[in-house]
Amino acid sequence: MIVEHYTLEYTTRGDDHIVDMTRQVQDAVAGSGISIGQAALLVHGSTAALTTLEYEPGLVDHDIAAAMERVAPRNVRYVHEETWHDDNGHSHVRAFTVGPSLALPIVAGKIPLGTWQQVVLVDFDTRARSRTVHLSVLGR
Amino acid sequence: MIVEHYTLEYTTRGDDHIVDMTRQVQDAVAGSGISIGQAALLVHGSTAALTTLEYEPGLVDHDIAAAMERVAPRNVRYVHEETWHDDNGHSHVRAFTVGPSLALPIVAGKIPLGTWQQVVLVDFDTRARSRTVHLSVLGR
Amino acid sequence: MIVEHYTLEYTTRGDDHIVDMTRQVQDAVAGSGISIGQAALLVHGSTAALTTLEYEPGLVDHDIAAAMERVAPRNVRYVHEETWHDDNGHSHVRAFTVGPSLALPIVAGKIPLGTWQQVVLVDFDTRARSRTVHLSVLGR
Repeated sequence: MIVEHYTLEYTTRGDDHIVDMTRQVQDAVAGSGISIGQAALLVHGSTAALTTLEYEPGLVDHDIAAAMERVAPRNVRYVHEETWHDDNGHSHVRAFTVGPSLALPIVAGKIPLGTWQQVVLVDFDTRARSRTVHLSVLGR
Repeated sequence: MIVEHYTLEYTTRGDDHIVDMTRQVQDAVAGSGISIGQAALLVHGSTAALTTLEYEPGLVDHDIAAAMERVAPRNVRYVHEETWHDDNGHSHVRAFTVGPSLALPIVAGKIPLGTWQQVVLVDFDTRARSRTVHLSVLGR
Repeated sequence: MIVEHYTLEYTTRGDDHIVDMTRQVQDAVAGSGISIGQAALLVHGSTAALTTLEYEPGLVDHDIAAAMERVAPRNVRYVHEETWHDDNGHSHVRAFTVGPSLALPIVAGKIPLGTWQQVVLVDFDTRARSRTVHLSVLGR
């Protein structure tokens, strides 16, 4: 059995900035030497999320943000903002909804993603951030 | 330690078609011989999602689709559609929001689901598809 | 390799009641003796969800519920309610959207969460419930 942990670091711009993590995740899995197993990913912090997406500009730069504006608009009342005197109530709600983690099977030494399916980090915060994603892998 | 991988195949109709995967998942877990452990599931492709749901016609045939229409309506502007000359911008956004993967504990040789809780594949694409779900299991 | 299973029990009030599970999850991980590995969490039942959130009153008592009301309002038609003569169609849809499970890496003997990032159980049902969350851990 192989058990390893990797820390992936990203610089993000905030405001629904979507980052393609696929290569770093696949490289870590390949480097572990695991053929069959599982990867668990978790983004550190409560205003970012992990999911998969076709990483193309229409979705990445417009369509996702437009939908998130329907779920958690920027310009409605957030008690979070009133309490803490900040401006990212919508960021917390969007991250809550999309979710902070992924469970990914490892098959034949890699994550079996579709051709147009990328592992993405979404930073919903309202400013540039440094983001850490924890990745652990188990298998044989 | 037991480490296995299974590939589950489904034929879907698209347009929010929801498929109950519970029996195939439980059969694979039982076949692995694992008593305590974890399963990771990932749907291949960026216009489908995995989650759990009470699999009954009201939710499956109406209520879920109605809610997804609020998050990502079919008839709004998607830059994805303008770029690629297709019609499934809303499918990508819905799949992004619900998510492509599940992490499921294995307890006493099975996934400990509720009686009215099924593991479901949701195909948000706008046409019939063949869908692959990867399942890996680890445990003892 | 260490493989363990834990059952976490909570009493919830329903109606978007959010419970902070962080201490119980971290205690279970610490008790397992695992240094590096993975945890899988699943809530039993189809009207509750698991995710992470900054556990502060503004988000917990107002902002999340307000956003979920946009995705699945209480006072629209649910065929689920017409069929089963109940009132929790919106609960099922909200749980479906947020999702029932989390995959969490274990690093240096704990889940590497942010300071303002808690593991939460959200009960979307319309009445008080007893809730079970299954947690399995694997690692070394």
